[in-house]
Amino acid sequence: MTAKGYAAHNTTDPLTPYSFERNEPGPHEVLIDILYCGICHADVHQSRNEYGHTQYPFVPGHEIVGRVRTTGQEVTKYKQGDLVGVGYFILSCGHCPNCASHEEQFCDNGITPTQNGKLPGGHTTKGGYSNCIVVNENYILRISEKLPPAAVAPLLCAGITTYSALKHNQVSAGHNVAVLGLGGLGHMAVKFAKSFGATVSVLSSSPSKTTSALALGAHRLVDTGDAAQLKTATGSFDFIIDTVSARHDYNQYLNLLKKDGTLILLGVPPEVPPIHPAMLAFRRRKITGSFIGGIEETQEMLDYCAKHNITAEVEVIQPSYINTAFERMLDGDVKYRFVIDMSEL
Amino acid sequence: MTAKGYAAHNTTDPLTPYSFERNEPGPHEVLIDILYCGICHADVHQSRNEYGHTQYPFVPGHEIVGRVRTTGQEVTKYKQGDLVGVGYFILSCGHCPNCASHEEQFCDNGITPTQNGKLPGGHTTKGGYSNCIVVNENYILRISEKLPPAAVAPLLCAGITTYSALKHNQVSAGHNVAVLGLGGLGHMAVKFAKSFGATVSVLSSSPSKTTSALALGAHRLVDTGDAAQLKTATGSFDFIIDTVSARHDYNQYLNLLKKDGTLILLGVPPEVPPIHPAMLAFRRRKITGSFIGGIEETQEMLDYCAKHNITAEVEVIQPSYINTAFERMLDGDVKYRFVIDMSEL
Repeated sequence: MTAKGYAAHNTTDPLTPYSFERNEPGPHEVLIDILYCGICHADVHQSRNEYGHTQYPFVPGHEIVGRVRTTGQEVTKYKQGDLVGVGYFILSCGHCPNCASHEEQFCDNGITPTQNGKLPGGHTTKGGYSNCIVVNENYILRISEKLPPAAVAPLLCAGITTYSALKHNQVSAGHNVAVLGLGGLGHMAVKFAKSFGATVSVLSSSPSKTTSALALGAHRLVDTGDAAQLKTATGSFDFIIDTVSARHDYNQYLNLLKKDGTLILLGVPPEVPPIHPAMLAFRRRKITGSFIGGIEETQEMLDYCAKHNITAEVEVIQPSYINTAFERMLDGDVKYRFVIDMSEL
Repeated sequence: MTAKGYAAHNTTDPLTPYSFERNEPGPHEVLIDILYCGICHADVHQSRNEYGHTQYPFVPGHEIVGRVRTTGQEVTKYKQGDLVGVGYFILSCGHCPNCASHEEQFCDNGITPTQNGKLPGGHTTKGGYSNCIVVNENYILRISEKLPPAAVAPLLCAGITTYSALKHNQVSAGHNVAVLGLGGLGHMAVKFAKSFGATVSVLSSSPSKTTSALALGAHRLVDTGDAAQLKTATGSFDFIIDTVSARHDYNQYLNLLKKDGTLILLGVPPEVPPIHPAMLAFRRRKITGSFIGGIEETQEMLDYCAKHNITAEVEVIQPSYINTAFERMLDGDVKYRFVIDMSEL
């Protein structure tokens, strides 16, 4: 079947309209008409081959909300017309210990990412900047009709990445949580941490973001360019959620953690950041990372969001605006996630 | 009162015999005749001012076992003739939250190290390479008469540092634990981890250490110079106890951890080691550190050692051998800790 979308064809040129073939759904697969797809930083980096293994033509997109068009004959979980989502991956081995324990994101045999992933047959996956996608029913999420679907799309990556990190580290009432980087991930981290009962601070070198931070539910903004504010914040946080993907000094932030506090890295800078072990030893602090979430946990997150009325803050754009959106996102000029309306494709 | 010991007088010359004044014990203080003192790597580094703030003449020594000679009039915990120990610090503020919760090593107002520490009156502390020391009774440990005192001395630093790290991270039966660096700390880490029920591997680039590792209780030695062995060990450890103070690549060891595994840094390299955040994110691994232990926990460790017959492996030396011992220790030529016999001072 012919699908249409937007693709990058090399490292430098803008994405352009692109037609390509999708397989008909197999017995356990679902064909989804895509309504909305969020724009994640990884989309830009992979379009430009900054991770080094992009297969062109490259169709980005892994924050997908759509409706079921047809289902394979063995499909039991979804039916035509269901509102569904697809996130960072569309397949895993299904039988390794991590898959068996519902943490498919750590599949020992490797997940198949929704974009630029390798399917068992050798094909490269094409993502959600397109009008439709075919996915195994076990890797599809159910989306509540209660929430605006455009604002749900970023939950499939930015949402689950922050939700899983906070849940796994047991962030809850009474904790002082700081969020570094107020973008797609950061604004969801503020919303979830606040929702879990924590007191949330935003760490930023732009005090002009204070109003925005408070509007998201933060208690305050700590101006990281102000030495006095940094000094006051020293040793004050149980957790710092670091969503910054640019190179930055982690030691300065480790110093803001309490004894036994944890720095959770969600951004993955291309360069290796140096960390001083004394920063860990002398207050027994921890550094850890987290990586999206499993299918079961992603469904739990979506259900939690429906119950608590949590969505991303989005700017909905037309497909023809994708390249401009990439540039604006790199400039930090979006509150807080671009989402493409695929009805105009 | 005049004390005698060994001191460094500058960054380059050998330590030489040295007489100096110690205060008479105050009401809450105890005068201890030192029997044995272990040699820790920090002693060498501070003798040579490699941490940058050594006050000369510098008397090292913070792995002290001795007997009480006299006690101040208010002392209730110890009496003349008691076998006692002194570790890394001899004072803390006593009233901050960390002191109140028996984690004096993290005192918010700063501990006073046993060597080269600053006392409230401004004096610099002189350590255990000497015939006696005066310490507040609350910072003294009780030593069992059951164990050989020379082999107990290293427990006061190398012992508590490893014990506390393993306990805090809840290392127990069923865990696969790796120990990197088989020196003073490393050999105690093997003994404690084994005693706590873990399966212990030693990571070393010297397969010739296999017999020694097994004798300490390790299950096996993984030759880190053998790519095949490293590959087999990938993703296999719950914990890695890293006792290496020289600069080394942490990423290689992070890769040996299971999902959710923890790298515990006990060595503090002078240089900043780079860590790749992807190593943390993609298996949700953790890096943390640990720093000696509180007085209560140190007593718990000593009591545990007496009950389970655990001591350090030591080579007892005369004071005149200190400078040779420094060189041999830097060459890794000791199994596994030098301890100075002060009776020959």
